[in-house]
Amino acid sequence: MEQKHLSRRAQWAGRQKIGYLMQQGVDFPDCLSLAAGLVDYATLPSDLVRKTADQLLLDPARQKSVLQYGTTPGSLELRTRLCQHLAELDGVSVAQQNFGVEQVFATTGSQQFLDLVTQAVCDPGDIVLVTAPSYFVYLSTLEGIGCELVPVTCDEEGICVAALDEALSALEAAGKLPRVKILYLVSYFDNPRGSTLGEARRREILDCLDRWLKKQFIYLLEDAAYRELWFDSPPPPSFLQLDSNPDRVIYTQTFSKCLSPGLRTAFGIVPPALVKAFDDLKSIHDFGSPNFSQAILLELLKTGGYHEHVADLRQAYREKGLTLFHALENSGLLSGQATARAPEGGLYVWLQLNDSGITTGFEDQLFRTAAQDFQVMYVPGELFYADSTNPEARLTMRLSYGVQPTGKLATGIERLAGAIQAVAGQPQVQ
Amino acid sequence: MEQKHLSRRAQWAGRQKIGYLMQQGVDFPDCLSLAAGLVDYATLPSDLVRKTADQLLLDPARQKSVLQYGTTPGSLELRTRLCQHLAELDGVSVAQQNFGVEQVFATTGSQQFLDLVTQAVCDPGDIVLVTAPSYFVYLSTLEGIGCELVPVTCDEEGICVAALDEALSALEAAGKLPRVKILYLVSYFDNPRGSTLGEARRREILDCLDRWLKKQFIYLLEDAAYRELWFDSPPPPSFLQLDSNPDRVIYTQTFSKCLSPGLRTAFGIVPPALVKAFDDLKSIHDFGSPNFSQAILLELLKTGGYHEHVADLRQAYREKGLTLFHALENSGLLSGQATARAPEGGLYVWLQLNDSGITTGFEDQLFRTAAQDFQVMYVPGELFYADSTNPEARLTMRLSYGVQPTGKLATGIERLAGAIQAVAGQPQVQ
Repeated sequence: MEQKHLSRRAQWAGRQKIGYLMQQGVDFPDCLSLAAGLVDYATLPSDLVRKTADQLLLDPARQKSVLQYGTTPGSLELRTRLCQHLAELDGVSVAQQNFGVEQVFATTGSQQFLDLVTQAVCDPGDIVLVTAPSYFVYLSTLEGIGCELVPVTCDEEGICVAALDEALSALEAAGKLPRVKILYLVSYFDNPRGSTLGEARRREILDCLDRWLKKQFIYLLEDAAYRELWFDSPPPPSFLQLDSNPDRVIYTQTFSKCLSPGLRTAFGIVPPALVKAFDDLKSIHDFGSPNFSQAILLELLKTGGYHEHVADLRQAYREKGLTLFHALENSGLLSGQATARAPEGGLYVWLQLNDSGITTGFEDQLFRTAAQDFQVMYVPGELFYADSTNPEARLTMRLSYGVQPTGKLATGIERLAGAIQAVAGQPQVQ
Repeated sequence: MEQKHLSRRAQWAGRQKIGYLMQQGVDFPDCLSLAAGLVDYATLPSDLVRKTADQLLLDPARQKSVLQYGTTPGSLELRTRLCQHLAELDGVSVAQQNFGVEQVFATTGSQQFLDLVTQAVCDPGDIVLVTAPSYFVYLSTLEGIGCELVPVTCDEEGICVAALDEALSALEAAGKLPRVKILYLVSYFDNPRGSTLGEARRREILDCLDRWLKKQFIYLLEDAAYRELWFDSPPPPSFLQLDSNPDRVIYTQTFSKCLSPGLRTAFGIVPPALVKAFDDLKSIHDFGSPNFSQAILLELLKTGGYHEHVADLRQAYREKGLTLFHALENSGLLSGQATARAPEGGLYVWLQLNDSGITTGFEDQLFRTAAQDFQVMYVPGELFYADSTNPEARLTMRLSYGVQPTGKLATGIERLAGAIQAVAGQPQVQ
């Protein structure tokens, strides 16, 4: 008798939509991918990492300890340095920060942090507020925990405060308010839209949460994955810094995008009430992320090698982002058929088709025509919507300029435009 | 209104006993630790890792890809090589193996594998059979998932088959059999006892599970963390290889102990029915362990650098293990007061006091006398027992020769013997 039983958690986790996308990548291997979330190959810092690894492994004081176990929260020296790094990004001194180093955890990518911190806060059935659209891996993470997702409308800047307020009122009316635990925001150059919440909007969001505080305490989970990848001017301070309530903001930032995903080093900051819980969960999960990767990151932060690298990276992604956007302009798509905004940072452009009957979903004609006949792949908008009946879900797509070299971006957009024109010339099945 | 609520999972995870131990380490920093589970510093392969990292990061074909994202299950080339590695350890060809590469996952330490695979199989309230004593971090992992732990008696070789059978009968009588999901065994040089299950015992255990198969399918989770650290002769084949049922054994093995915990690279093999579930859970947890660490391990397996290293390591730990054991013999403790066996591999010696009123627990006189007056620390046996009322729990201790240099092991044992004699000379509080 073979056991077919899987845990509820495994069954919930089995609903991930990313599988479709990866299968398409396998089915159409010759596609020029504007879908993949990988980072630029050319700028991956092989030399920098090699020299740093050499220094660490030749230094008698460190050559052994970097290969030994670390501690569950990660290297204290690294976490101390991360406080300083964040103070620089937020334009304050460490003394002005709302948190202490004991609240900082090094993790294996920010994804691990997101999963564990949500597990620390949420039971199955608890509610998390997300934007429509939002980062799809986190949507799957929430489903894997058995959470209910409540989407909130966005405008060009990000989440709409009035919509947030309305969503909370509706939840209250439905008697669900006590189950609302987290508001999740990708607050800088977000995935998928590339939007950044300005300082004024940030304060309005915090004010809104303050107004609801008497009725329900809600954590604000700020995912700052793309924060350092600004093109022309640095973005506003974090919610973490702006919030006068030191117990509310959970913050995470990864070095996957701005240094190397192969090192998979990120960090997260939890409010005091979650320090023990996060440490407990991480302790039984892996009792600490790889020490060697942490040591490389620490050294690069100390020597300034990281800062030089990320400055170069901003220019490289700026060039690629603008190349892709100009190709969209040159394609004619933005003259009536679709809208998009020039990226100001991050890795993505969000393309929204006008409602002409052409839809972008995995099962729709456009996706297949693009992949099969025009050899180009995008991520359908539907992947990013907790509510798949949202009409935007099938009118939108995410285009990434992360992994393709600059020279291929225009080709990719020409192919995409060709696919859209080809489908537009066909009778549409409604 | 500050939210004090934590998820059930966070509350369950908060029961870990390891916290006591780590706090003792902080409270008594000058202790010579025979407690710490760290590995030997002197043999950590700084040179080998440096040269390997250099090769990878200077090779135009690999210098970028090793710093890029990998895939959720890990590098296919590494996983293929791991199949071959395991075939060598099991004395078979790859064609004779019971599993395929698609069942192999690279993980961040075997701890991550243990946590995720248990989450894939078990819901809160499900039952896992463990040995008494067993690896304490996994006991905490099970508590963190909300599992019920059922301990099974061991003899010098490991789990007793008759006791396993009785435990299952008792569970059946209590109507609990349908909730029994996993039997967990550290099958080589186990933590904490250093025992290895011989081939005959392994077959008896599989036969026992076969007899129960009609009533309940139970996964056998084989943790082979110490498998390669044998001293004089290689241990028997794995359950994975011995079991004719290809759906039953879940296997994991880490390179933390036999290469470097700082790289935190391990692997696990799941039966076909769990492949998708494990991939789903790992995908929402971190979508893949660090690629760079995987690349270093792969290169060391390909060049044979790993095999040379682990051969040296066996000799180094053999010397340390025997040094500690001879110090125990010389201390006189084994002439009436206590029993222990000479280690044949792994990192631990299990010391069992005869029942003379002296107990080994954190709150007992001996632990405090040892740490405070004699500056030596051990791990109390109670940490390893799911049932803390087991009389063995307070008569036993784990002594590790992992992290202390050879020269300090005899000193550590002298101090421990001194503490035991000091406490033996005092009136005992029963």
